[in-house]
Amino acid sequence: MDTLAGLKRTHSCAILAKNDADREVTICGWVARRRDHGGLIFIDLRDRSGMVQVVFSPDYNTEAFTKAETVRNEYVLAVRGKVKLRSADTVNPQMITGEIEVLGEELRILNQAKTPPFYIQDEVDVDEPLRLKYRYLDLRRPEMQRNLMLRHRVTKAMRDFFDGRGFVEVETPMLTKSSPEGARDYLVPSRVNPGKFFALPQSPQLFKQILMVAGMEKYFQIVRCFRDEDLRADRQPEFTQLDIEMSFIDREDILAMMEDMIAYLFKQACGVDIPRPLMRLTYDEAMARYGSDKPDLRFGMELIDISPAVKNSGFKVFDTVLEQGGQVKAINVQGYAGIPRRELDGLTDYVATYGAKGLAWMCYTPEGIKSQITKFFSEETIQKVTQATQAKEGDLLLILAGQPAGVANALGQLRLEMGRRLDLIDPEKLSFLWVIDFPMFEYDAEEKRWVAMHHPFTSPRDEDIEFLGFDPGRIKAKAYDMVLNGTEIGGGSLRIYQRELQEKVFKAIGLTRDEAYEKFGYLLEAFEYGTPPHGGIAFGLDRLVMLMAKRASIRDVIAFPKTQSATDMMVQAPSEVSLRQLKELHVKSEVIAKK
Amino acid sequence: MDTLAGLKRTHSCAILAKNDADREVTICGWVARRRDHGGLIFIDLRDRSGMVQVVFSPDYNTEAFTKAETVRNEYVLAVRGKVKLRSADTVNPQMITGEIEVLGEELRILNQAKTPPFYIQDEVDVDEPLRLKYRYLDLRRPEMQRNLMLRHRVTKAMRDFFDGRGFVEVETPMLTKSSPEGARDYLVPSRVNPGKFFALPQSPQLFKQILMVAGMEKYFQIVRCFRDEDLRADRQPEFTQLDIEMSFIDREDILAMMEDMIAYLFKQACGVDIPRPLMRLTYDEAMARYGSDKPDLRFGMELIDISPAVKNSGFKVFDTVLEQGGQVKAINVQGYAGIPRRELDGLTDYVATYGAKGLAWMCYTPEGIKSQITKFFSEETIQKVTQATQAKEGDLLLILAGQPAGVANALGQLRLEMGRRLDLIDPEKLSFLWVIDFPMFEYDAEEKRWVAMHHPFTSPRDEDIEFLGFDPGRIKAKAYDMVLNGTEIGGGSLRIYQRELQEKVFKAIGLTRDEAYEKFGYLLEAFEYGTPPHGGIAFGLDRLVMLMAKRASIRDVIAFPKTQSATDMMVQAPSEVSLRQLKELHVKSEVIAKK
Repeated sequence: MDTLAGLKRTHSCAILAKNDADREVTICGWVARRRDHGGLIFIDLRDRSGMVQVVFSPDYNTEAFTKAETVRNEYVLAVRGKVKLRSADTVNPQMITGEIEVLGEELRILNQAKTPPFYIQDEVDVDEPLRLKYRYLDLRRPEMQRNLMLRHRVTKAMRDFFDGRGFVEVETPMLTKSSPEGARDYLVPSRVNPGKFFALPQSPQLFKQILMVAGMEKYFQIVRCFRDEDLRADRQPEFTQLDIEMSFIDREDILAMMEDMIAYLFKQACGVDIPRPLMRLTYDEAMARYGSDKPDLRFGMELIDISPAVKNSGFKVFDTVLEQGGQVKAINVQGYAGIPRRELDGLTDYVATYGAKGLAWMCYTPEGIKSQITKFFSEETIQKVTQATQAKEGDLLLILAGQPAGVANALGQLRLEMGRRLDLIDPEKLSFLWVIDFPMFEYDAEEKRWVAMHHPFTSPRDEDIEFLGFDPGRIKAKAYDMVLNGTEIGGGSLRIYQRELQEKVFKAIGLTRDEAYEKFGYLLEAFEYGTPPHGGIAFGLDRLVMLMAKRASIRDVIAFPKTQSATDMMVQAPSEVSLRQLKELHVKSEVIAKK
Repeated sequence: MDTLAGLKRTHSCAILAKNDADREVTICGWVARRRDHGGLIFIDLRDRSGMVQVVFSPDYNTEAFTKAETVRNEYVLAVRGKVKLRSADTVNPQMITGEIEVLGEELRILNQAKTPPFYIQDEVDVDEPLRLKYRYLDLRRPEMQRNLMLRHRVTKAMRDFFDGRGFVEVETPMLTKSSPEGARDYLVPSRVNPGKFFALPQSPQLFKQILMVAGMEKYFQIVRCFRDEDLRADRQPEFTQLDIEMSFIDREDILAMMEDMIAYLFKQACGVDIPRPLMRLTYDEAMARYGSDKPDLRFGMELIDISPAVKNSGFKVFDTVLEQGGQVKAINVQGYAGIPRRELDGLTDYVATYGAKGLAWMCYTPEGIKSQITKFFSEETIQKVTQATQAKEGDLLLILAGQPAGVANALGQLRLEMGRRLDLIDPEKLSFLWVIDFPMFEYDAEEKRWVAMHHPFTSPRDEDIEFLGFDPGRIKAKAYDMVLNGTEIGGGSLRIYQRELQEKVFKAIGLTRDEAYEKFGYLLEAFEYGTPPHGGIAFGLDRLVMLMAKRASIRDVIAFPKTQSATDMMVQAPSEVSLRQLKELHVKSEVIAKK
């Protein structure tokens, strides 16, 4: 094998262009393709910048040509040669460097390569486990390189933005304290302190609040966080968040600053202008109109409450629901009255997966309304429904009845599903909004207690504090989420900064005073030494970059992601460890012990 | 307590100056000091920027004055008022804002504070455990705020530098695979994969090499790393490193780029110019002349080999040592011939802690040479020693004899100690150098095997590869360390990038083929799919910032450090966890089980 010794790379492949004609260059990269044609050897050489064609001719340099004959795909080469304009008939308009080629004078084979298990090309359909095992080959694909470079540009822009506004990036510990509230902690046994464990942080929430107590005033950090959750959907055991906290501010200061930040990112990294201020919806409004606290506003089809229209309609199902404090709500799927009966049955199954017991429909066909429920309705009821939903000929109403939370969820999902089926969602559109005024608590039926909807450090609205202790469900929090295209990309709040109020909130979620001090004593104590009013927000970096890259999975914007079973396919982690290691850590594996 | 509602902070405290006179401002911060004088109340209000004096007068605003009477140290205030020039006799030249004061019109007490356990001032002598427990108060001290802001500026400058040169910051996993080689791993039990464990990374070494295989070409990352070592000296279980890797380069490319980077950092963050190129010493030369592979070049006092001078001197101790392949080396402590006998005895004890069995000395006093050994020497031997060491009247020679490694270590330490005692080390000086041509392996007498001096992924020099397998001690590596003022701040190497050579090196350090593939199989496999020649380096961020901040401990540049017993005094981590948590992770604590 050759070395680079005495040769210095002068150019990246894809920056060579017409005006480099006759220039002597040295380029390095991987063989993307080799063709032999007309006694010449053509090699597409690929580096991070892209590709350029290199030609070897026996007439021009025999030694280089002979070596080139041994070259295979993914070999690593260094080529010294002259840039030449291609003749008009050989110009390749598909290639950025298609107007030129490099005539090879010297060829060094820096490394060989076996045949890769899949093609190093975009749009190649490869099983994800294979991609993850050979991640180093998968990451050679231009698209994956673009994703990682986009991620870099985004974090760089974030840091430029915050640095320019007086924020200080402070690193918070990874080995910290377990305080399971929410997700499970990853634990790390301590060798020096037998029987004790560190936890990896689910977020630096308390450290950033402590930094506010410490007078840092404006903090940010791009930081790794950990949640040992079941990896349904598109989650990773470790993920990265942009974490922000500010003192002496109110909600408007934070929201405005974050809108500026997001606009800056999209401008810098994607060249897109984001109009501001962003739209806002209260939580109640978002749930009522879209059945979601992270509504996708790229299309309409809002949820319409037809409870008044069908009140006392005589249709027993609806009447019963309404008597029990429930709702009847509809979406108007415009122009879809011709929906096949089989699809309607499928939709009934679909909403059933979200807990809905049935789906009513009304098709406004040219021959009149077809429906399984209008036979129970008076003409007046039908008119009221039509009026409420503004349904016209050709439209389809899909109707759910039940308790508000259940209807919102199932009908919200149905709305999204119909949006996808009818292709109403413009993938190029960016629909941002703030959702504000979240409930402070939600009732956990399983644990039979109130839990904090955001987290227990969120401040309740001043005017709602009086309900603490006897009507927690009524309390709204000073919390806010930023939503993009139906995905929550950031969430935050103004925080509690007084010990008494914090203790009351801990009590409301069922923590005894002892438990509260055991877990969060240092925070409660810190609050007594001069804590400024403060608040913040955190953005999920993986998800944000995924949306910017227009990818469907966060695994495509993470260099070395884990699978749904939380394993790293390439390095084979987690793995077994030696008994000696465990002994030093004062732990036993129940599994290894059994062996 | 008051809120900020309706009031907006307009200025930071310390940016107010003469030209703000008569401006109405709103400032926020902490009470650093309150004095009552002449019927007025003076408050030094402190925020992140610094301090400004606020005055409350009963004549100007009675309500604000009355409130100000209740204010104590570290209360959090918002003050609206007018900037006034101070009269000439009340100007405070000690204060940046000493020419002005703010006349308080409205005072809001945003939070109260108990009396802090120590003063929030620089240069206050407080026990470190107390500082760490109340870290939020310790971090309020201006010096600690400066340290954290310096750290921020340094990392920002690093990112600007690398971004500007086409490097991509890529995040590598924190939950990865255990491959204990070097320090102990921190382990993380897996819930989803019973009996298996993740390890926290000691460095992203293999991931960054994999990124080179993946064609990223220029990678960097500022990344948390973990080593479960005994925390002697100034180490932390988690630390941060600047991690760099490049493809298609040789050593000179990396060294030059890193010199530019370091110069950029010192210019940006400290305003200091670093002359380049940096000096270089080979490992052998550094050991010979300074007895250290990280020599402090801020002063001379080099180690002098006087073996030739004392050969066959008739002094039995030296003769025996030299016959056994040892050395006799001296340092010339100029002008210190008058050293008290008691101090000489103390130095003998000092070198004993580094394994030296005795210390010889020669004091060149006006009355002639005083020494415990010259009585064994001929006049000629004494002359040769004097010549070799260039000792003159007033000088002190300190002499050690023994095997080369032992002499180097003990005499190198003695040199540093004498440099400190004689105050030869200019704290303002910055002495950088590269140490190059390290040995590839060193013999571990305890484990009775060769180990890699840097790490086993370091490339041996091409001309030394032939010695692999039969004379590993002779092989030099393509490794380099950057040293600043006697501290290694960065270390790296060109890497092995061919499977065969990597396998040979694994074999040389005693790994069987099976063990090598079990631990590093993915790397060996990756090498076969087109791996470019590559190399890199890593810098210890904590240590670098510590040196830039001229602090003696890395704990002063880490927001939330751990103690020497690896505990977080503030949050009380590590801590006990519930049996339910452990059960879910399929592990048992031997300690908790015993209870």
